Amino acid sequence: MKFKAEIDIMPLDALLDPQGKAVTSSLKNIGLEAVSNVRIGRHIRMFIESDSKEEASKIVDEACDKLLVNKIMESYTFSIEEV
Amino acid sequence: MKFKAEIDIMPLDALLDPQGKAVTSSLKNIGLEAVSNVRIGRHIRMFIESDSKEEASKIVDEACDKLLVNKIMESYTFSIEEV
Repeated sequence: MKFKAEIDIMPLDALLDPQGKAVTSSLKNIGLEAVSNVRIGRHIRMFIESDSKEEASKIVDEACDKLLVNKIMESYTFSIEEV
Repeated sequence: MKFKAEIDIMPLDALLDPQGKAVTSSLKNIGLEAVSNVRIGRHIRMFIESDSKEEASKIVDEACDKLLVNKIMESYTFSIEEV
């Protein structure tokens, strides 16, 4: 079966996010005063060939742990659906 | 009311994604052969002070159109919830 995983990788809440801060002020400068606390991370989409959703989840966890996520600075969440 | 918006900005399907290609081969190299077609974009979280969900949506659309998204190369989707 084929699964699609959508992974969000965000800077930890405890850490500053200078890029997000810059975007927050830029948005205020162009008149969008209602926006606050912008934080910027990465979104990764991938496809996984696997026998079950559980196995696909394990593969995504392994990919995040070994390559995609720096756990000192980032946290991740993901969702998986069959396609 | 305060709303939280989660925005995904991805490279258009018609465009190559060299970063995603590199990650696909790296994952294969560390033994995750089941993964294919990795694409990498941005995930942006922001908070919006607004009277209604519809108004908050408009603000997010305006932020994406004016600042966050390069529509020649990227597309975006978002979800909003009250917090």
